[in-house]
Amino acid sequence: MHSLLNNLNLTERLSQQVNFILETDKLKQVIRRNFIADGSRRENTAEHSWQIILITLTFSEYAKEKNIDLLKVIKMLTLHDLVEIYAGDVFLFDEKANVGKFENETQSADQLFGLLPEEQKSEFKALWLEFEATQTPESLFANAIDRITPFLLNSVNGGQSWTEAQVKAEQALKKLAVIEQGSDEIWNLFLQLLEQAKINKLLL
Amino acid sequence: MHSLLNNLNLTERLSQQVNFILETDKLKQVIRRNFIADGSRRENTAEHSWQIILITLTFSEYAKEKNIDLLKVIKMLTLHDLVEIYAGDVFLFDEKANVGKFENETQSADQLFGLLPEEQKSEFKALWLEFEATQTPESLFANAIDRITPFLLNSVNGGQSWTEAQVKAEQALKKLAVIEQGSDEIWNLFLQLLEQAKINKLLL
Repeated sequence: MHSLLNNLNLTERLSQQVNFILETDKLKQVIRRNFIADGSRRENTAEHSWQIILITLTFSEYAKEKNIDLLKVIKMLTLHDLVEIYAGDVFLFDEKANVGKFENETQSADQLFGLLPEEQKSEFKALWLEFEATQTPESLFANAIDRITPFLLNSVNGGQSWTEAQVKAEQALKKLAVIEQGSDEIWNLFLQLLEQAKINKLLL
Repeated sequence: MHSLLNNLNLTERLSQQVNFILETDKLKQVIRRNFIADGSRRENTAEHSWQIILITLTFSEYAKEKNIDLLKVIKMLTLHDLVEIYAGDVFLFDEKANVGKFENETQSADQLFGLLPEEQKSEFKALWLEFEATQTPESLFANAIDRITPFLLNSVNGGQSWTEAQVKAEQALKKLAVIEQGSDEIWNLFLQLLEQAKINKLLL
């Protein structure tokens, strides 16, 4: 428990929740591989998490499943990268670093969500697992948004995170294939961005 | 329109939306007065926007109105600070800087949301106005979350943004009074944090 909570007279439940909030502030210090749109610096995972929520609101009409539960999509996107606080960000195209990723992140999820009251822990962990499993319409749309976002940023910022890792177009096509299950329009956008990235030699 | 869009064959509607997304990436570069929880740096408005959504999910049970539309609360919180891209962040306790704030932000809202297709512009602007008006249950809860968040961070990071601006406890009590309309539990949390801040001489 954060030492602040020793000096407050809160319910046990609210203490746990405030403690969780203070701990999750660390997401602002998890640095991702990709750069922000103007290329001036790499982005952190907290600002990425906000951006995918904004894009979800802007692109909501493009979900393949028309009766999608948008609140659930947003819940998933708000929570899904919190595991990086302990497990770190793993670059999508770093095959080695992706070995054991799910196991590490599961440990991290249990540790972090375990700070919360029991039923809230279960709710948040279930949302994280649903996102990871890419089976439900909500999870597929959330994953489509999460994948197109850094791809779009790389398309306008010179693609430094691609070129420094020598990412190939065929790798991108494989790793972003999940987009097609979540949205026809975003898949079409991705294919066009991929062509441009090849023309501009941002991808090998 | 961003030059990227000249090379893509998208619908006019999707082009406008992608352009909006690229423009709003600038929120990551709007720096707020307050510091992140560990005090190591000031935070930017994009990461703040994510954090208030996470806190909304964690504290949803504390909304005064029990049948609150949580999706609407989150939409407001995702969008409400976008106006800072052109209008800049205004420190809550800087009385001078707050003169003309609403007019500046209205111009900014029209400019930024004006990038979107007409009915989406109207929807987003209406959400922003509803947030600002602090009348509906959703707006009151969203404002309560938005106000408690930097107060909580200042309570654990040494309160540098308070001390450098010589913020008084009575100013805080006045500026954060809206919390009481949004949530009893968050108002109680605020009052306790205020007492601690006075004891620790973080507020004058």
